[in-house]
Amino acid sequence: MTQTFEEISPADFFYRNRDIAGFTNPSRAVFASIRELVENSLDAAEIAGTPPDIYVRLTFEEDDQESGIYKLRVEDNGSGIVSRHIPSAFGQVLFGSKYKLKQSRGTFGLGGTMAVLYGQITTHKPARIVSSTGSTKVYIYRVMIDIQRNKPIILERRVLLNKEQWHGTIVEFSLEGDYFRAMPKILEYLKQTALVNPYANITFIDPKGRLFKFSRVTEKMPPPPKETLPHPYGVDVEMVKRLVRVTPHQKMMDFLSAHFHRVSERIAEKFLEFSGIPKTRNPKKLDPQEIVRFVQMLKRFEEFRPPSAACLSPLGKDLLTAGILKELKPELTIVCQRKPSTYAGHPFIVETAIAYGGEIPKGGDFVLYRFANRIPLLYDEASDVAFRVIKSMNWRRYKVSPNMPIAVLVHTCSTKIPYKTVGKEFIADRPEIKREIQNGLREVARGLQRFLSKREHVEREKRRLSVFSKYLPKIAKFSTELAGRERQPEIEKLLRSVNTSG
Amino acid sequence: MTQTFEEISPADFFYRNRDIAGFTNPSRAVFASIRELVENSLDAAEIAGTPPDIYVRLTFEEDDQESGIYKLRVEDNGSGIVSRHIPSAFGQVLFGSKYKLKQSRGTFGLGGTMAVLYGQITTHKPARIVSSTGSTKVYIYRVMIDIQRNKPIILERRVLLNKEQWHGTIVEFSLEGDYFRAMPKILEYLKQTALVNPYANITFIDPKGRLFKFSRVTEKMPPPPKETLPHPYGVDVEMVKRLVRVTPHQKMMDFLSAHFHRVSERIAEKFLEFSGIPKTRNPKKLDPQEIVRFVQMLKRFEEFRPPSAACLSPLGKDLLTAGILKELKPELTIVCQRKPSTYAGHPFIVETAIAYGGEIPKGGDFVLYRFANRIPLLYDEASDVAFRVIKSMNWRRYKVSPNMPIAVLVHTCSTKIPYKTVGKEFIADRPEIKREIQNGLREVARGLQRFLSKREHVEREKRRLSVFSKYLPKIAKFSTELAGRERQPEIEKLLRSVNTSG
Repeated sequence: MTQTFEEISPADFFYRNRDIAGFTNPSRAVFASIRELVENSLDAAEIAGTPPDIYVRLTFEEDDQESGIYKLRVEDNGSGIVSRHIPSAFGQVLFGSKYKLKQSRGTFGLGGTMAVLYGQITTHKPARIVSSTGSTKVYIYRVMIDIQRNKPIILERRVLLNKEQWHGTIVEFSLEGDYFRAMPKILEYLKQTALVNPYANITFIDPKGRLFKFSRVTEKMPPPPKETLPHPYGVDVEMVKRLVRVTPHQKMMDFLSAHFHRVSERIAEKFLEFSGIPKTRNPKKLDPQEIVRFVQMLKRFEEFRPPSAACLSPLGKDLLTAGILKELKPELTIVCQRKPSTYAGHPFIVETAIAYGGEIPKGGDFVLYRFANRIPLLYDEASDVAFRVIKSMNWRRYKVSPNMPIAVLVHTCSTKIPYKTVGKEFIADRPEIKREIQNGLREVARGLQRFLSKREHVEREKRRLSVFSKYLPKIAKFSTELAGRERQPEIEKLLRSVNTSG
Repeated sequence: MTQTFEEISPADFFYRNRDIAGFTNPSRAVFASIRELVENSLDAAEIAGTPPDIYVRLTFEEDDQESGIYKLRVEDNGSGIVSRHIPSAFGQVLFGSKYKLKQSRGTFGLGGTMAVLYGQITTHKPARIVSSTGSTKVYIYRVMIDIQRNKPIILERRVLLNKEQWHGTIVEFSLEGDYFRAMPKILEYLKQTALVNPYANITFIDPKGRLFKFSRVTEKMPPPPKETLPHPYGVDVEMVKRLVRVTPHQKMMDFLSAHFHRVSERIAEKFLEFSGIPKTRNPKKLDPQEIVRFVQMLKRFEEFRPPSAACLSPLGKDLLTAGILKELKPELTIVCQRKPSTYAGHPFIVETAIAYGGEIPKGGDFVLYRFANRIPLLYDEASDVAFRVIKSMNWRRYKVSPNMPIAVLVHTCSTKIPYKTVGKEFIADRPEIKREIQNGLREVARGLQRFLSKREHVEREKRRLSVFSKYLPKIAKFSTELAGRERQPEIEKLLRSVNTSG
């Protein structure tokens, strides 16, 4: 007896193993579908440079509300998708716009297509996509996925005139789900997304017809992320082989300064001298062993400039504060933006915040909000690096005691977020990232400590003043009587001076 | 500005996201490579019906032991791979033999290729594969993976005469790794694999030249798993569409009884009547909505016979006991094999065991060994369903106290193990599986309780006997003196009768 072999397509792989993409059960699948499409919409709006207007509508597919079949519709005003790419963007797995070296919300290029795939295998209905890039035409497609071939099946294609010069995308499809089990997570997701994207309008209508609106508090958006070149510390042999294959340059000197991040001709020259490679060597003539050695030398050369974070797009202290005030309504907000850092050749920036009091609920230790590339992470908190950092800190030295109304926020942005899973639930424990989160949290914790100390002090002074206010009149009266005087001394001035000295 | 799109191959996807396949860092990658190849070898030996002989050798690639580059070689005596499939079996992602509905160790069809891929991207060296199915020829290939196209690159192909009629496979490749960090996990993995496959010889030589041999204690193997038809409760619309596409049958009646598990003509007839589908309807003429309804009806019809577990291959109580004695050397072993059960149309069998005393270490609560389809699961214990069941049980009622030398083993086999991740670290929390594990553990816990009670009782009797032995002679002597007799009564008989009554 021998083994028999077959080949399966990536669509087939994720069809058989949808658990690993986060589509574990009907409740999780509704959540995952909404999040993937909302994140695509946010990315698209940023590319268009427009403050996002996103409409999410989930309705019962049939009159029979028990059937568990829903229709999901997500509309945005983003950059839209050019007509020829629409079928593959939703009907082919591993076809997407997220494969560049750039900070983006989507990571694996799976999201939208996984949602459509899941809808198809649970309802056997096509997805309807409407999109325009703002040109004179609006394109409408009905597509399904040929799972075994990983190719889109175009059931219908229509073209309309784009009279209002609309740009954006509408995705509509049916899926088996469990909204009521998923509802708390969906609403939490939308609220946290609104927090970390305070320039976005997000509207959600649920199957019961309830409207949830998260309104923008500003039209100001951070500068969009930019695509960047790979950094010498972050490439491997495969990447170098691909660069060699496509480079028009015929000298190592030019190859280095053209294709690598922040490598000037001067640095390129120094490196080539360091590694004993001639400046005029033709990159396409390097044999495999030379490429391996080249990569090893890149990692050993210590004079490459660290990755610049100019390609990144953190939220910024103003917008982060605005988002927190909008969604959490605290009494106090302290934010911190760390200087850029790097891990494995990828730049990253950590932003932290503490929100205290106001409408922040008390109880327990604290509430942790985690974000990466401006999306919320809602699962597997205990496995996340931010959670571990918080647990390892000694909060008492910052005057924090249990049951205080505290929320802690950690946002990481990078050209590559080290997710452990395709479902983007939590961030792995990279030492460089851990260190930045630690320092960022200490900084905002110190801010909280100053506030709590000052408040303690003010409380003390108030009590002192209260004592004075209570007894001073009596003392004044009594002393007056004792001294046989008629007129009491002026105590108002005295009280006021105590008040102001506190 | 618009979005730009590109397509990437599955090899490229796993190249960029190797974390999600378990190749997170050099230490984990060495472990993952060894486990994937060993599991392929065990599966191959079972197909050949031969007790497995597996040789694993990890050496330093270069004299420089600090470089972190290793060479891994895994040889087995399994069924071998036919020549034309060898390049794709190792040089193409999503090409494999694990895509049938059958209990097997490999699940995602990624394993061997991921290992070769990882080796290639860290060392840029080809993999060397030698294989024969026992025919007159032995085939030797050197392959690399064209990652962007997901196709094998054949660098060399040789054919030798198979004089000794050998059958098996040898895989050899270089990779960046960290053996010393991985060593405890690798040895633990091999030991547990030897436990749950007690008919296998596993030999491991590590980079320091140390030999670790796990010898078989029996040549008896369980009957191999068999491929099975899908069960009506476990199909979805996509699966039915594929069956319809390939079926030669032109009547629904025949279509049902030919392609579904345990559906006789009588049951098929009842079902078709229940769902209002004519017996003679041509399956290829069903429109999409009818297929959807067909699947819904399949799930609602209650008279389908439950999946048979005849296709499964559990270890069996004898072999499980043999494996435990071999690797754990306990004083007491209690095993239990539950009757087959099902989840989502997939049959599964749970086997549990408790090992007590002997060389089982004391301390802490207990040691848990988890297995699925006869492979050990070594990570993420706290997320596994078996761990949660153990934590929720009240062990004190079984007379178990902390610090007892106890090991608990749980083995689940199924046509589909509900892994949460591609790295096969732990099993998800399916209620049906949870229930079987609970009942299985209660049964062996009761066995342990009986043993502990009996031992308690024996201890008590010993103490009682010891008291008698101590005082009876004195009483006898004293009574003799008191009665003025010369001769003492016979106490030996008395002592013996106390002894035997205990």
